[in-house]
Amino acid sequence: MGDVLRIGLLGCGRIGIMHAANINMHPKTKLAAVYDIDDSASKNAADTHGAIACGHADEIFANPEIDAVLIATATETHADYIESAVAACKPVLCEKPIDLDLARVNLCRDRIADSTVPVQIGFNRRFDPGHRACRNALLAGEVGELRQLIIISRDPAMPPSEYCAVSGGIFRDMTIHDFDMARFILGEEPVEVVALANRLIDPELMNRIGDYDTAMITMRTATGRQCIINNSRVAVYGYDQRVEILGSDGMLQSENQTPHALRRHSASQTAAQEPYQNFFVERYREAYWAEIGAFADCVMNGTQPEVGFEDGRRALVLAEAAYLSLSEKRVVAVDEVD
Amino acid sequence: MGDVLRIGLLGCGRIGIMHAANINMHPKTKLAAVYDIDDSASKNAADTHGAIACGHADEIFANPEIDAVLIATATETHADYIESAVAACKPVLCEKPIDLDLARVNLCRDRIADSTVPVQIGFNRRFDPGHRACRNALLAGEVGELRQLIIISRDPAMPPSEYCAVSGGIFRDMTIHDFDMARFILGEEPVEVVALANRLIDPELMNRIGDYDTAMITMRTATGRQCIINNSRVAVYGYDQRVEILGSDGMLQSENQTPHALRRHSASQTAAQEPYQNFFVERYREAYWAEIGAFADCVMNGTQPEVGFEDGRRALVLAEAAYLSLSEKRVVAVDEVD
Amino acid sequence: MGDVLRIGLLGCGRIGIMHAANINMHPKTKLAAVYDIDDSASKNAADTHGAIACGHADEIFANPEIDAVLIATATETHADYIESAVAACKPVLCEKPIDLDLARVNLCRDRIADSTVPVQIGFNRRFDPGHRACRNALLAGEVGELRQLIIISRDPAMPPSEYCAVSGGIFRDMTIHDFDMARFILGEEPVEVVALANRLIDPELMNRIGDYDTAMITMRTATGRQCIINNSRVAVYGYDQRVEILGSDGMLQSENQTPHALRRHSASQTAAQEPYQNFFVERYREAYWAEIGAFADCVMNGTQPEVGFEDGRRALVLAEAAYLSLSEKRVVAVDEVD
Amino acid sequence: MGDVLRIGLLGCGRIGIMHAANINMHPKTKLAAVYDIDDSASKNAADTHGAIACGHADEIFANPEIDAVLIATATETHADYIESAVAACKPVLCEKPIDLDLARVNLCRDRIADSTVPVQIGFNRRFDPGHRACRNALLAGEVGELRQLIIISRDPAMPPSEYCAVSGGIFRDMTIHDFDMARFILGEEPVEVVALANRLIDPELMNRIGDYDTAMITMRTATGRQCIINNSRVAVYGYDQRVEILGSDGMLQSENQTPHALRRHSASQTAAQEPYQNFFVERYREAYWAEIGAFADCVMNGTQPEVGFEDGRRALVLAEAAYLSLSEKRVVAVDEVD
Repeated sequence: MGDVLRIGLLGCGRIGIMHAANINMHPKTKLAAVYDIDDSASKNAADTHGAIACGHADEIFANPEIDAVLIATATETHADYIESAVAACKPVLCEKPIDLDLARVNLCRDRIADSTVPVQIGFNRRFDPGHRACRNALLAGEVGELRQLIIISRDPAMPPSEYCAVSGGIFRDMTIHDFDMARFILGEEPVEVVALANRLIDPELMNRIGDYDTAMITMRTATGRQCIINNSRVAVYGYDQRVEILGSDGMLQSENQTPHALRRHSASQTAAQEPYQNFFVERYREAYWAEIGAFADCVMNGTQPEVGFEDGRRALVLAEAAYLSLSEKRVVAVDEVD
Repeated sequence: MGDVLRIGLLGCGRIGIMHAANINMHPKTKLAAVYDIDDSASKNAADTHGAIACGHADEIFANPEIDAVLIATATETHADYIESAVAACKPVLCEKPIDLDLARVNLCRDRIADSTVPVQIGFNRRFDPGHRACRNALLAGEVGELRQLIIISRDPAMPPSEYCAVSGGIFRDMTIHDFDMARFILGEEPVEVVALANRLIDPELMNRIGDYDTAMITMRTATGRQCIINNSRVAVYGYDQRVEILGSDGMLQSENQTPHALRRHSASQTAAQEPYQNFFVERYREAYWAEIGAFADCVMNGTQPEVGFEDGRRALVLAEAAYLSLSEKRVVAVDEVD
Repeated sequence: MGDVLRIGLLGCGRIGIMHAANINMHPKTKLAAVYDIDDSASKNAADTHGAIACGHADEIFANPEIDAVLIATATETHADYIESAVAACKPVLCEKPIDLDLARVNLCRDRIADSTVPVQIGFNRRFDPGHRACRNALLAGEVGELRQLIIISRDPAMPPSEYCAVSGGIFRDMTIHDFDMARFILGEEPVEVVALANRLIDPELMNRIGDYDTAMITMRTATGRQCIINNSRVAVYGYDQRVEILGSDGMLQSENQTPHALRRHSASQTAAQEPYQNFFVERYREAYWAEIGAFADCVMNGTQPEVGFEDGRRALVLAEAAYLSLSEKRVVAVDEVD
Repeated sequence: MGDVLRIGLLGCGRIGIMHAANINMHPKTKLAAVYDIDDSASKNAADTHGAIACGHADEIFANPEIDAVLIATATETHADYIESAVAACKPVLCEKPIDLDLARVNLCRDRIADSTVPVQIGFNRRFDPGHRACRNALLAGEVGELRQLIIISRDPAMPPSEYCAVSGGIFRDMTIHDFDMARFILGEEPVEVVALANRLIDPELMNRIGDYDTAMITMRTATGRQCIINNSRVAVYGYDQRVEILGSDGMLQSENQTPHALRRHSASQTAAQEPYQNFFVERYREAYWAEIGAFADCVMNGTQPEVGFEDGRRALVLAEAAYLSLSEKRVVAVDEVD
C-alpha cells in the first residue's frame, strides 16, 4: 500500500456516488474500481470518477491493486460482501445496516471472527463535527456525569413507498443510526428498551407494509443513564438531527444548523432563519468526509476502526429489542434478544 | 360581589405570600383575609398586605365579605378546604395537587359533584405566555396535526430532603405539572403510560425515601399522538422548562428565556447567555399573575375555570399509571388505575 | 423622612401615570400627591393611585409631607420645576431632557450650583438589566479595553406629527438617550462628533418641521474609543434597542428580547421568534422600576444620583455638536459647543 | 474552449493555492498552468495540482491551451497582468485590489477600455450564501426600501507587521471589501463619506507605518440611504462578518455562523457557542467556490462578470474619499476624489 488508499467501490447508487466523489477528493484515498449490479451504472461512475468498471464484484476482491473496499450495495448483499472482502484481506467500510436479519449478522460475525481485517460500519453521524464535539466535551468532563440523553432524529420527508416496503422497518432502517448514536454517547450499553410506535403520517402505507412512521424509544443503561430517541419520518422544516446531554454539571446540545445565517425580521416575527439542510448528503457532508479519512487512517495505521462490526451488530440488537417491546407492550431486557 | 374580587388566602408560606402580593397588585382582586396554621405567619402577612388575620380557616369560609378563597396550605389539607369552600359557596383557587391519594381525590370529587362553585387548580404553567402561545399556534392550525410532544421539565436544584420525604414522590409532586401540560397540549387524553425512573442525583436519599430524581415518561393518546416527559430534579444551568410540538406542517418550541439578553463573546466561545431564571417564582411570574386574573374572570363572569377539579384529578391518575408502569415494567393503560 | 419616600408627581400624562403605579408598587416609595396642568388628569391620577390632587405645582414644593418630586411634565417646564424643587430642598427625579435649549440648561445649572439636593435625570436605560450587565462585564474586565461601541436605537413607529413638531428634533429628543448610553458605556467623554441625518420615512413631515427621521452619529473619545449611534424613527419589527461593545479580549452584546420564547418552524423557515416589545413602557419596565428604587436609595442614603444634572446637560451638549456637524458637514469638537 | 475552462494561475501563495484546489475540484474549471515569481512555488503547485509550471507569466498569456487567467500575485503586479491578459484576449479573475494607486487603476481602465474581455475582481464576499441571500431578500422586496446598512467586518488577528507595512493602509487593504459590499447592497452609489480611524490595537506599529487598526466609516447615497462600516484588525472571538439591512418593512441580518452547532450550558452560562470561523479561507469557503463558478459561467456564456473592473475601481475611490475625510476631518463628496 502506498501513500494513498486505493478503494474499490461496490454499489453506484446515490450514496455510492457520493462516496466516490469524496474518495477522489480526499488526499488519503483514490477510487480505483467500481462495481454495480447494473453495468451502465458502474460504467458511468467509472467514467466520471476515473476508475475502472468491473463486471463482477469478485474482480474487486481479486485485484491486488485495490487496498480496501467500500460497500454501498443493497442491504441484503452487505454480509456476503463483508465476508468476501475479509476473505480477500481487504479492509471494509460497509454502509449500515450489516443485514436486516440478526441471525445473518451473527453468522457473519462468526465467519469473520478469526480475522483482524478492519471492518468499519458506516454510522456516519459519529463523525459529525457537532455530535463529536458534544461527546468530546462530555468525555472531557465539562458537564460531569451523564444522566439523560435526548436524541431527536427526524427525516425531512417519507422515502418512496417501494423503499419503505423493503427497508426492514423504521427501527432497523432509521432508528438504527440513533441506536448507534446512543451507544456512542452513553458510554455504557443500554440494558433495557421500551418502544412506542405509531402510524400518523401515512397510515394506509404503514398498515399495508406493517411499519410505523413515528416513534419514541426509551432506553436505560445498567447504572441508570436514561435515553430517549425521538423519530419521525417527516419534518417539513428540514432534516432535524439533535443530541442533548444532561449531565450533573451542565448540559450540552448539538443543534441543527442552517445553510447560512440570514435572519429575517418583520412586523410579524423576528430572527426567522432558513429551513434546515434538506437531507443527509448536505447535513452530514463533513461527517462523510471525515468517515472516509478515518477509514483510511485505520487501514494505513493498522488499527481497528472506531465503528466496528460489533457496533453494527449491537445497534441491530437494540432494534430487535424495540420490536419485541412494541409487540409485548413491556420493558424488554436487551439480553432477551441477544 | 363588587368590581373587585375579595380573596381569602389559606396558607402564608412562600407560595401563599407570592399570591398575596399578586392579589393586591392585580386590578381585579384584593386580599381580604389570611389564615395560616402558624398565627405569626398569618399576622405578618396580614400586616404586610393590609388584610385581616384569621385564627381559623372557618372564619374565612364564614365571612360574607370574602368572595373567594385561595388555598396554599399543606397538601394534605387541600381536599378538606376545597370541600369547606364549596360548601360555603366560595369559589376556590387551590394549589396543586388536590391530594396525594387518588381515593381521597375521588371522594372529594363525589362530595362536590352537585355544586357549580368554580374550583380552579393551580396548574400555573398553563398561563405561561410562551407555553400558551405555543398551544394557541397549534390550535390555530399553524403546524397542522400534532404528532409528537416533548416536555422537558428540570428543576434547578433538589428540594430540601424533608420536603422530598413528604412530597408524595416525583410523579405526584413534580411530574404532575407536566402531566397537566401534556393534557393541555395534546388535545386528547393519554391512554397509555410507560415510566422510567432512576436515582442518579442523590441515590442515598432517594433509596431511603423510596423516590426517584430522574425520570422519563412516555405516553400515547387513542389516536396515537406521542408524548415524552423528561424530568430531572437538578439542572445546574437553571430551571429548564421547554415544550416542543411536532406537527404535520411544522414545529413549535416554547423555549427558556434568560433574565436579560447579554451575549458574551471571547476567544473560547461566542454568544454565551445568562443562566436561566432560577425557579418558578421568577420563571412563571407572568403565569401566576395571569392565573389570578383568570380566576377573577371566571368567578366574576360566572363561568367555569379553564383548569378545573377534574384536570387536577386526571393529572394524578397519570401519576398513578406511571407508578404502576414503573413497578411492573410495562405499558400501563390509564384505565387500569382510574 | 420615614421608611418610605413620599413622592409628589408633577405631570400625569402617559409617562407620569406609569411612574405613579411604580411608585406605589415599590416598597421604598409612595405616591403622596399629584399635579397636572389639567385638573381632571391630576384628579383622576389621585383617585386611582390614592394620592392628593394639587391645583398648583407649588403646593407640592411647599408640602412638608412630601419628601421628593418626580417631574414628568412638558419639557419646557422641567428647568423651572427643577429650580423650584431644589429651592424647596426636595430631591428631584426629572424626565429627560432638562430643556431643549442648552442656554436654559446652563442657567439652571448655575442656579442650582450651590445646592446639594439630589437631582436625578430620567435616563431610564441606564437601569436596564441587560445594558447594565453589559457595562458591568466591561468594568469587570471581561473583554479588556473597550475599542468600539455600537448603539442601535430604533423606535417601533413615528410619534404623532404634533409631537414631532415640538420634540426639539431627533437628536435632542431621541438620540439624547443614546448620547447618555454612550457616555455611560464609553468610560470617557466623547470629544468629537460627526452626524448624518436624512428624511427617509416621512419626508413631507420632516421637511415641514425641519427634522430628520433616520440618523447615524459617530463619536470619538480622547484616547480614540469609537462609537456609532444608529437611529431610526421606525422599525416595523419592534422597539430595537441594542448595545455592542468590542473590547481587546472579547465582545459583549446587549440584545433585544422577545416577550416570550416561542419558536416557529415551518417548511419555509425555522426558529422564527415573536416581534420585539412594542415600546419603552414594556421594553424598559424593569429599568423604570429600578430607576425609582435607585432614586429612593440615593435620597434615603444622602448620596448623589448615578445619573445627575450634569449627565443630562452633557447629553444635550452632544446633541448640539451633532447639529453643528450636520449643518457644517464636518467633524465637530464637542468643546466648540460647550 | 471546451466544456471545461482551462485556467492559468498567476501567483502560488496561500490564496493562489486555495484557488488552485477549487479550480480543480470545480466541475467547470481545470488548472492548466501555474506561474509564480518563485520557481519552486510554481513547481510545487504544478506537481500537487497536476498543471504545468511556467517560468514566466507570458508563457501563460501566450498559451492557446489556456482559456483564462486568475491573478493572485502581489498587488503591484495586478494592473500589469490585467493589461497583459486583456491584450492576449484571456478573461481575467483578479484578486483585489486592482492597485493601491488610483491613478494606476485609472490608467489600466483606459488601456483596457476598448476591450470586451471579461475582467472579474475577486470580491469574494459577494458570493457568500448568507450575504447574497440577504441582498436577494432585499431585491425581492421583503423589507421594502433600504434605509440603513450596517457592515461589521473585523479580522480575527493582526496580519504580520511586514504585510501591514505594504498593505496600502486599512482602507485600501481591508475596508475595500466592505466598500464593495456597501455598493453591492445599497443599490445606489455612495456620494458622501466620513471616516474615523484610530490606533488602538498596536499603536507603536501603526504610528511607525502611518496606518490605523480600528475604523468607522459612514457613507450616504444621493437619496439618503445610510451606511456604516465598522472595522477592527482584531476580534479575539473570530472573524466577524455581519451585514444588517434596515428597510421600511423589516430588517435582514446576515450573521456569523459557528463551525458546528454545539451549545454549552453550565451553572454560569447557557447556550455558549463555538468561536467563529478563524478566517477568510474557512468563512468564505463556499464564496470562493461560487466565485470560480461565476467566473467560468461568464466566460463560457460570453457575458460580463457580476463584479467587474469598475467595481474594483469604485471601491478604491471610496477608500480615497475615506482618507481625505480622515485628514480633513470633514464629510467628503466622493466626486472630489474621482
